Amino acid sequence: MPTLPDADAKSGWIDAETKVAEAPADHGDELRLWLRLLTCSTLVETEVRRRLREEFDFTLPRFDLLAQLERAVDGMVLGALSKRMMVSAGNLTALVERMVESGHVSRTTSPADRRVQIIALTDHGRAAFRTMADRHGDWIGSLFADLSAQDRKALMAGLARLKGSVRRALDAPSQTG
Amino acid sequence: MPTLPDADAKSGWIDAETKVAEAPADHGDELRLWLRLLTCSTLVETEVRRRLREEFDFTLPRFDLLAQLERAVDGMVLGALSKRMMVSAGNLTALVERMVESGHVSRTTSPADRRVQIIALTDHGRAAFRTMADRHGDWIGSLFADLSAQDRKALMAGLARLKGSVRRALDAPSQTG
Repeated sequence: MPTLPDADAKSGWIDAETKVAEAPADHGDELRLWLRLLTCSTLVETEVRRRLREEFDFTLPRFDLLAQLERAVDGMVLGALSKRMMVSAGNLTALVERMVESGHVSRTTSPADRRVQIIALTDHGRAAFRTMADRHGDWIGSLFADLSAQDRKALMAGLARLKGSVRRALDAPSQTG
Repeated sequence: MPTLPDADAKSGWIDAETKVAEAPADHGDELRLWLRLLTCSTLVETEVRRRLREEFDFTLPRFDLLAQLERAVDGMVLGALSKRMMVSAGNLTALVERMVESGHVSRTTSPADRRVQIIALTDHGRAAFRTMADRHGDWIGSLFADLSAQDRKALMAGLARLKGSVRRALDAPSQTG
């Protein structure tokens, strides 16, 4: 059962892995691995959300939007941004609206096609993002601090193999299950 | 930038890892590892959501609720369920409401305290969950099929180390960042 959050007695963190006991006998190893992976990513993501909120009064979707735009020097068209972020155009429009109001983002009409809106970082948005991105790097560095360089290298290799396996399965859906 | 989904040209899947190029020089290794981990878990979770929807017309929160209840033979009090699933009581009440209507879940008043409601699986809900959980095991088995037993073992060990590192950092928040 992959996405079953469980309260950890000590910290209150999700720990999906704790309920692997009753995993079906077949694929038990794979399920245990998946739940451990999910536990790790949930722990980190929850902490990133919490710190963004506490230190910057910022949400993860807002942070993600700035991060997307930071890479696009000339801004991005709303449709492309929506696709890139895998967020519906309606939700993204509302998010952009709020971030125009907060001064992080600008929205201009394309000179080439007046129906097209271009979203870009403002100077304020760029500066705010750099500050948060630096802190974000510190958070991750701190959360991963007990891993040696060799631990990291081994995990990178193992996760690359896992990612390859998942992608191959997704590219051949008829053979799945 | 941890949670930046990126469209993969071929499959349309999120791939946060592709934007690690501009990670800050410090903590670069840790950021790359985090993004690879996030990419893997997002790929799998998105696929699980998609398959639940396509094969069973079911959502992940509904599946998670059944999974929680399956472990509680005598049902669970709403408050405990809310805490366990890390979902607000309001959202959970709405979810339970719908699943009572669909016949997966029953809601009864505690004989000991009439203010307390007990949520439990119905026979229908239990059977539906078993069917979906078996399929879920198949999906994960298929997605992870290219990993050898040794790959899985190495990943389990590496992720255990990562989880330990994250938990230690979370237990000592004053030293974080």
